Amino acid sequence: MSQTSPASYKHKGFKISVPATSANIGPGFDVLGIAYSMYLTLDCARLPEGASPRLVMSYEGEGASDVPLIAEKNLITKTAMYVLSTYGIDQLPPLKIHCTNPIPLGRGLGSSGSAVVAGVLLANAAGELNMTNDRMLDYCLMVERHPDNVAPALMGGFVASFLRELEPKDLEPSSIPQSEPTRNGAPQPPTPVTDIGHYVQLGWNDEIKAVTIIPDFEVATEDARAVLPDMYERPDVIYNLQRIAVLTSALARKPVNPGLIHQAMRDKVHQPYRKHLIPGMAEMLETITPTTCPGVVGICLSGAGPTILVLATKNFEEIAHRVQAIFEKQPNGGIKSMYKVLDIVEEGAKTEYQD
Amino acid sequence: MSQTSPASYKHKGFKISVPATSANIGPGFDVLGIAYSMYLTLDCARLPEGASPRLVMSYEGEGASDVPLIAEKNLITKTAMYVLSTYGIDQLPPLKIHCTNPIPLGRGLGSSGSAVVAGVLLANAAGELNMTNDRMLDYCLMVERHPDNVAPALMGGFVASFLRELEPKDLEPSSIPQSEPTRNGAPQPPTPVTDIGHYVQLGWNDEIKAVTIIPDFEVATEDARAVLPDMYERPDVIYNLQRIAVLTSALARKPVNPGLIHQAMRDKVHQPYRKHLIPGMAEMLETITPTTCPGVVGICLSGAGPTILVLATKNFEEIAHRVQAIFEKQPNGGIKSMYKVLDIVEEGAKTEYQD
Repeated sequence: MSQTSPASYKHKGFKISVPATSANIGPGFDVLGIAYSMYLTLDCARLPEGASPRLVMSYEGEGASDVPLIAEKNLITKTAMYVLSTYGIDQLPPLKIHCTNPIPLGRGLGSSGSAVVAGVLLANAAGELNMTNDRMLDYCLMVERHPDNVAPALMGGFVASFLRELEPKDLEPSSIPQSEPTRNGAPQPPTPVTDIGHYVQLGWNDEIKAVTIIPDFEVATEDARAVLPDMYERPDVIYNLQRIAVLTSALARKPVNPGLIHQAMRDKVHQPYRKHLIPGMAEMLETITPTTCPGVVGICLSGAGPTILVLATKNFEEIAHRVQAIFEKQPNGGIKSMYKVLDIVEEGAKTEYQD
Repeated sequence: MSQTSPASYKHKGFKISVPATSANIGPGFDVLGIAYSMYLTLDCARLPEGASPRLVMSYEGEGASDVPLIAEKNLITKTAMYVLSTYGIDQLPPLKIHCTNPIPLGRGLGSSGSAVVAGVLLANAAGELNMTNDRMLDYCLMVERHPDNVAPALMGGFVASFLRELEPKDLEPSSIPQSEPTRNGAPQPPTPVTDIGHYVQLGWNDEIKAVTIIPDFEVATEDARAVLPDMYERPDVIYNLQRIAVLTSALARKPVNPGLIHQAMRDKVHQPYRKHLIPGMAEMLETITPTTCPGVVGICLSGAGPTILVLATKNFEEIAHRVQAIFEKQPNGGIKSMYKVLDIVEEGAKTEYQD
């Protein structure tokens, strides 16, 4: 096949950036997420039609040694191919993609959610699909059923989200095809119904920053979910309902009210059950408070952990060191960690076109 | 004892008004409450010191035939006497009090919460205690341990609230003295610790009004609580957490988003268990939607019921009639009801002084 120019597309290339996120903020298990000033980026240049290989993918940063760069296996491109297939497009247009990923994998900073969002944006840009953000959220939620990472990654800011109650038929398949995407003759994957996700962007007082302390081990989301109980006592349910209702507003208020936020960040739905998965967490939650560490406004697990999230207005390094010191004194040689001080960003994932 | 003039007090009298409230808004069981444009009022005139009787109490409106008007038995004056006793004042100053109460009793419109708030304001005004609203909330919460009625009644508006985690010793006695207040020689009742309650006032789009449909029977709060389960399944917990996080913001947004609010008003923590206590409720929750009744933005039980609360932007009478028609067609002759269309008021309880 002779190579044709990519001139039929409007742009020679595009750059996609998707923020990292924390889900499960405080009492907001499976509900509240925030987007950070740390971005997974894809630099994409179109290749001529008929180029071989059609996809040239490179990758730097976190996961560089492990992440597969084959279209059908990489979560970003696999997601993009699913989206395109619902538009009747059976493969990615020829592309050169360079991924830069600063988001540690398996640490509770939403790396796979960001990859899914990047994949949907990739399909939208590469296939010139002109989807709205709301429609892209539907696609993200077909792949990643928990909205609390993908909604803030896509929309930005501090986001509360939930899934609409769907008919079971609307939700098949429950994940994207694990094999190659649909080819001629195979049944086409389902186009998502519209408005799968409901979300609101909540206010955020930008004096409050995120100190994320990232220990040197991974917690698999499925392991973290397996330790949760099937049933909760009524007082624990009410405990979280009361705090989440206050927290969603309290984080926007000026001046910052650390006493109120710290109380409202407490949780009885997931953190107590995950303490043994993250050595030192119980001590951190108990001892790192606005009183003991001025600047602290609240502390919780980031996602399913093991990253610890401290919301703070000052003394960021000192706060990080306090958390690190608790990790370091754990048995069996201690736990190494790194930290990042991040802003909460109002803008979510975006695509910048070249030309 | 000779009568002395009340001149040692700054004012000859005062008028206290306290709004009615709905608690348990949508998914906000034991959390969310709103204050209405319907007020319990106390018109108070000081009597001379030494007046006999010291208290002249009259009452009109809802409960007029049942509410006791003896200082030690009436919830308003009993609450006031408790507050005064913590200041070392062993009885109410001589007063003539006329209560006007439009709030139906035992229907889920916060009548007893409003009475408790009125009692605390009565103590504050009659004893010239100069308490702040926050301090008065502490007293209200010593008497009525659930903040979701008293916080909006006192503070006004749409309020999320919870109790601080207190030491057990801070919470004794668990209710106000049932007998006469402490006299000389008896141990003094406990002064509340400060900041028992945490609360935030949430935004409210004032296009949204409350249609309250009040059926002609009472549900005792203890009966309504007895039907609740001790344990909840995790998906039901998350269901409410997701919706309360969205609802607290969605009700403030402009323009009104009925689809979002209606979904976010749904609940799996108390309403499903109370359906049999309120005949017709299940059908109302299912069939009265923004689609079937334009103007509806959400529907839920008010408090522990039996009042039905429909939030709406228009067609208020028509919506009320739809709910009433479902009450009327219930077995055994149907259920009679009345309705009130109420505003959500930003201002809570207040005291206006005369002179």
